[in-house]
Amino acid sequence: MSKKPVIKIGLVGLGVVGGGVWKHIQQNRLALERRLGARLQLVKVAVQDLKKKRSVKVSRAQLTTDPMSIANDPDIDIVCELMGGTSLARKVTLAALKNGKIVVTANKALICKYGAQLFETARNGGGHYFFEASVGGGIPIIKVIREGLVANRFNLIYGILNGTCNYILTRMERESLTFDKTLNAARELGYVEADESLDLEGWDTAHKAVILAYLAHGKWVNLKDVPVEGIGNITLEDIQWADELGFKIKLLGIISQNNKGKSIFVRVHPTLIRKDKIMANVDGVYNAVSVSGDIVGSGIHIGRGAGQDATASAVIGDVADGVSALLGTPPPVVLEDDAELYASLGSDIELSSLEDVTGQYYLRLSVTDKPGVLAEISTVMADHDVSIASMIQPQESSNQQATLILTTHQSNEKRMQDTIRDLKKLKNVHRSPFLLRIVNFD
Amino acid sequence: MSKKPVIKIGLVGLGVVGGGVWKHIQQNRLALERRLGARLQLVKVAVQDLKKKRSVKVSRAQLTTDPMSIANDPDIDIVCELMGGTSLARKVTLAALKNGKIVVTANKALICKYGAQLFETARNGGGHYFFEASVGGGIPIIKVIREGLVANRFNLIYGILNGTCNYILTRMERESLTFDKTLNAARELGYVEADESLDLEGWDTAHKAVILAYLAHGKWVNLKDVPVEGIGNITLEDIQWADELGFKIKLLGIISQNNKGKSIFVRVHPTLIRKDKIMANVDGVYNAVSVSGDIVGSGIHIGRGAGQDATASAVIGDVADGVSALLGTPPPVVLEDDAELYASLGSDIELSSLEDVTGQYYLRLSVTDKPGVLAEISTVMADHDVSIASMIQPQESSNQQATLILTTHQSNEKRMQDTIRDLKKLKNVHRSPFLLRIVNFD
Repeated sequence: MSKKPVIKIGLVGLGVVGGGVWKHIQQNRLALERRLGARLQLVKVAVQDLKKKRSVKVSRAQLTTDPMSIANDPDIDIVCELMGGTSLARKVTLAALKNGKIVVTANKALICKYGAQLFETARNGGGHYFFEASVGGGIPIIKVIREGLVANRFNLIYGILNGTCNYILTRMERESLTFDKTLNAARELGYVEADESLDLEGWDTAHKAVILAYLAHGKWVNLKDVPVEGIGNITLEDIQWADELGFKIKLLGIISQNNKGKSIFVRVHPTLIRKDKIMANVDGVYNAVSVSGDIVGSGIHIGRGAGQDATASAVIGDVADGVSALLGTPPPVVLEDDAELYASLGSDIELSSLEDVTGQYYLRLSVTDKPGVLAEISTVMADHDVSIASMIQPQESSNQQATLILTTHQSNEKRMQDTIRDLKKLKNVHRSPFLLRIVNFD
Repeated sequence: MSKKPVIKIGLVGLGVVGGGVWKHIQQNRLALERRLGARLQLVKVAVQDLKKKRSVKVSRAQLTTDPMSIANDPDIDIVCELMGGTSLARKVTLAALKNGKIVVTANKALICKYGAQLFETARNGGGHYFFEASVGGGIPIIKVIREGLVANRFNLIYGILNGTCNYILTRMERESLTFDKTLNAARELGYVEADESLDLEGWDTAHKAVILAYLAHGKWVNLKDVPVEGIGNITLEDIQWADELGFKIKLLGIISQNNKGKSIFVRVHPTLIRKDKIMANVDGVYNAVSVSGDIVGSGIHIGRGAGQDATASAVIGDVADGVSALLGTPPPVVLEDDAELYASLGSDIELSSLEDVTGQYYLRLSVTDKPGVLAEISTVMADHDVSIASMIQPQESSNQQATLILTTHQSNEKRMQDTIRDLKKLKNVHRSPFLLRIVNFD
């Protein structure tokens, strides 16, 4: 095995997100390092309280209470700024970028306020400022817009950008709860930020919309030019009347082009969306971003909007891009070695046997229309341990043949193949039985 | 302005996709070259018939009938293989990759059949083989999986990967048409490939599923190990019975991990999905891919599945990655210069005025419960040219107050602000009127 270059990482903040990042890098380290062609080494972690008990294991020697010592450590290649706030975080980020480091962040408020300065500092310093985790949680929407859809100009981007608000609206709607009752439930689950106005009054959504507007149009829109309304004035009755009118209510951040692309507008407000639209059906803590490009047309990207794991996934994706930038390797990581890797871990990937592929099934049979036939069929199915979940016998009669629609409880491909083979042998089953799979993913 | 490096491109194939790629590079050239920090030059185009009339303008001197001359031209940096097929396309691709070039392709059949060899050749030659356009049309799903979600291991990936089949199933369902009638309509619209079995019997979906399995698990699954069923045996009645049972029918490609990640299984078959799932509501020619990662959780990516423009968007995204790889610049293109660029094009991006931000509106009013009040309100609205689309007056009475829910026809933010200002002045309107926006995107 060739010797891999070592990439040295400093974490600023070891709270929910920082802890998640380090936990998942540790857990998937082998696969990750193989894909990146580099070793990842945690050099230093800045925390507020050295003595606090933590869920991730970091040695005392790696801890510091001085985040600037990470920004200025010549040994560190990538700094993950996961402390939040716009004061010390800004100072740390500017210092690291001035030193030509790669900075990875989830700090949408900071970017929204000082983005122009931060990106310019990154450019002048020769480093990079990566911020996938700042918008859309686990959805790689930054990458989608500025890399995947780089060919496009964007006439409309809009989305559900705050999981807390979406969770509250979804529960109000589903359980006919008032805003206050639902908010209390969300608080108890820890779904609401310490500063509640960030979520509820729409500011978090506005921060993210401003970042998306910059990505799509290269323009920093000042937050004071963004009309922002939250969800606090929405009553349960509004949700019910909207329902009556054929709509659901979602808090959206909207970046629209107007005047044939000569102007843009960024706004945040609760919005009525027709119930049959995909966006209206993105519920709970999920986020979704709809992107319309002049070439690609419109698309929607849906995923978990927040939480330790989704955010960590985004931060690690940025760390990987940082490694590519440092090593000069292109990010499309070729994975052909992964099968080998998994093999070396003792879990050689093979094709599953048909017994392992499980599910429920829909079965359409053409049978003789006479008593006793259903008994024959259910006996064959029972012989193969396939149990019937539902049965429809549509009213129709032609040549004394009837159609029978059966669905099964959980079974597997092997048992169903055997069942069909034996059903075909029955004199009262005409034509080949027609099988469809029922999936119940998520 | 500093002198930009020139990246030289050869196109193999100038049909629907090739023509689209060149057309869009021409149209968005200024923005694209700015973002990439490079000039894009079309050096040579291989076609079958030199005399054919084409929708894009290419000079006779650039045309050749010999695709190998592009693969072997030392002057060319990036080869876009858009000819299709698995014989000559393979020869051309292997030659270009051996020469260390970057090859961009939409050829899923070729990758599925010879992927292992092609990627090894790319690695040995020092070039790259990019294939975003091969799966999911305009959805940058390859980039999402192997870059954005690089931190994850994937327990389940499934999706609607063939727009033609989805179009047929959607029309059968919506218009109660038989399979044959719908197929004929799809043929007339040019939605079906020359070799119909590729679409209808599920092979196109299988090619894409094999590519996704490779991306997620680093393993090339042989097509003969993939159970593949198409949509040809689905009757209109199946769709109706499925509906009765609470399901929609979609053709899915499914890549699942089994046995705790020790084995995987790739399959393609029509599938019953519960109607309330997002995937069940992806209709028409749209594709959708659901990706579940061990860290990020599940997400869905939806977009146009095929067609000249969506495919061109994906190819150009890969060309951009190719440029980054050639120049050693990281792909996260910083766009802060774009505002300048647009300005230089005479379309300085400004914030839209409130008159430009149009839409319909939902208005909740608390009013005195007596005759004549509605007339007062509608007069104010008419004064500002806002017309009422619907009205609900819920039955409730407290202190002689009534609630009034109005929706408007198309209006704009300015007119609504003025309307609300004047409504507030009415003695019979209590509390501040509550306004929600109605969006009708797509």
